[in-house]
Amino acid sequence: MIENVTCLAGGVGAAKLLQGLINVMPQENLTVIVNVGDDIELHGLHISPDPDIIMYTLASIVDEEKGWGIQGDTFNFVSMLKQYGLETWFKLGDKDLATHVYRTCLIKEGVPLSGVIQRLCRALGLKVNLLPVTNQKIVPQILTNTGKMHFEEYLVKRGARDRVLDVTFEGAELARPAPGVIKSIQDADGIIVCPSNPIVSIGPILAVKEVRSALTETSAKVVAISPIVGGSTIKGPADKLMRGLGLDVSAFSVASLYRDFLDTFILDNIDEKMKENIAKLGIEPIATDTIMKSLQDKVNLATRTLQALL
Amino acid sequence: MIENVTCLAGGVGAAKLLQGLINVMPQENLTVIVNVGDDIELHGLHISPDPDIIMYTLASIVDEEKGWGIQGDTFNFVSMLKQYGLETWFKLGDKDLATHVYRTCLIKEGVPLSGVIQRLCRALGLKVNLLPVTNQKIVPQILTNTGKMHFEEYLVKRGARDRVLDVTFEGAELARPAPGVIKSIQDADGIIVCPSNPIVSIGPILAVKEVRSALTETSAKVVAISPIVGGSTIKGPADKLMRGLGLDVSAFSVASLYRDFLDTFILDNIDEKMKENIAKLGIEPIATDTIMKSLQDKVNLATRTLQALL
Repeated sequence: MIENVTCLAGGVGAAKLLQGLINVMPQENLTVIVNVGDDIELHGLHISPDPDIIMYTLASIVDEEKGWGIQGDTFNFVSMLKQYGLETWFKLGDKDLATHVYRTCLIKEGVPLSGVIQRLCRALGLKVNLLPVTNQKIVPQILTNTGKMHFEEYLVKRGARDRVLDVTFEGAELARPAPGVIKSIQDADGIIVCPSNPIVSIGPILAVKEVRSALTETSAKVVAISPIVGGSTIKGPADKLMRGLGLDVSAFSVASLYRDFLDTFILDNIDEKMKENIAKLGIEPIATDTIMKSLQDKVNLATRTLQALL
Repeated sequence: MIENVTCLAGGVGAAKLLQGLINVMPQENLTVIVNVGDDIELHGLHISPDPDIIMYTLASIVDEEKGWGIQGDTFNFVSMLKQYGLETWFKLGDKDLATHVYRTCLIKEGVPLSGVIQRLCRALGLKVNLLPVTNQKIVPQILTNTGKMHFEEYLVKRGARDRVLDVTFEGAELARPAPGVIKSIQDADGIIVCPSNPIVSIGPILAVKEVRSALTETSAKVVAISPIVGGSTIKGPADKLMRGLGLDVSAFSVASLYRDFLDTFILDNIDEKMKENIAKLGIEPIATDTIMKSLQDKVNLATRTLQALL
């Protein structure tokens, strides 16, 4: 029986699946190991985009239209920062800012990021076990034709318009898993790799060696869901990043990136033709509807994924 | 001729007079030495209430009704902090927050408070020379019947309801004047002590020994304006503080607190009967209208004060 489930997660795509999961299983049994590679310090504030997207989504306060930030938020803080002549390419909502200020304050007091996320989750009434993959820093650096830059700079500030040559993860060599991360993989009855960017969302998680080792060693089934549908991404720059790294932009490519630990790969019906090649990697392919628009779509995909873990 | 004027200033009352002054003299010739005794760290942010009130007022962005904060501000940040279960007795507007985040960030980078205030002023288009009395900390501690507390806690959190037994200034012994403070007193053609709380606004400024010495030594005229009118304060808890310290709540009491350096004392027409006793202190008394409601009131009092410096 599948009781305890551990997920590897990025931002928006993962949050949708997780929202489906908490509708069909108890939050208490769900552990989410979340990417911190997008974390960035802006105006002295520690910002953790992926943990926040997941928190806000599961607490039903996310701005559904944007997929990030808090619903009904205002942007008076950034408008005033602009008056002070500061860069405001990273949009920080006024409510959202409370999260960043509180987190920064707690970190300054010596609370590790994992402890901060736990406090925020509890305050928002969440029972899910949301863990940053590490309490240290992992910084994906995107080497482009116009220079090396932080992923958020590449994505938000420059609108993903540069040509990608390589992606590296600064700090990953030294990063230790946050408390509970390895145990959650070892104790899980099933593991889900969410439909997130394989390069800059799942990539930093897998770059922590002990995490990748634990995934290869577990006897529990590992199921991943393709973030690539019909040769393009649902959201974000995964396609540009994959192409830049010399990979085909396809569900097959994603499956092959995970082949050392993956048992089952869920891809969209539209990509059914790739099932044969995926099977040749020793991975069981399952085709289904993977586009999540309504809550019912999310619940359906979550249910199908849990079935695949059996 | 009065060209360069230096003012000692607290918050709201001082800001009104200063607004009058910049309407009748060039901002470039005006130096304001401002109290930092109200400075407080909240949620990891460095908050400087008095410098901000003056900045916002002179930049014409202050919330006129409240006398502090920025006009048209929202309070979504604090509402979210509340959701996180944090104390939100200190009201931080969302625009206002940009000032605190920017200041905290600059201080973290090693910029002294005086440098931070200068940057903020320039960004807001101000030419006035606004100087914190010190770049170090001076913390007025209010000893009350319910215990010792920070002034902001006494004033905002507990609504000034406790009985005051004593006021002390932690850090004042060691505090050095910020760069430019002493020179601005030495070079001034006239010095104005704004109508601010003599205990917790002007008090911390005078608690810096070199400042009080420079005031007693200057040959320029020193003029103070009474914040006490008809036996009560225009705004704030000066009356409670003065009473707690065993002082009469009167213009005369304020004049006597400044008697070692004061040449002239401007008090309200309503208190004209005190002129005689003030003159006995060796201080020239001037009675006029000191209540500042309209801009014209502010300009009138500023003009009268400049005349008194001649």
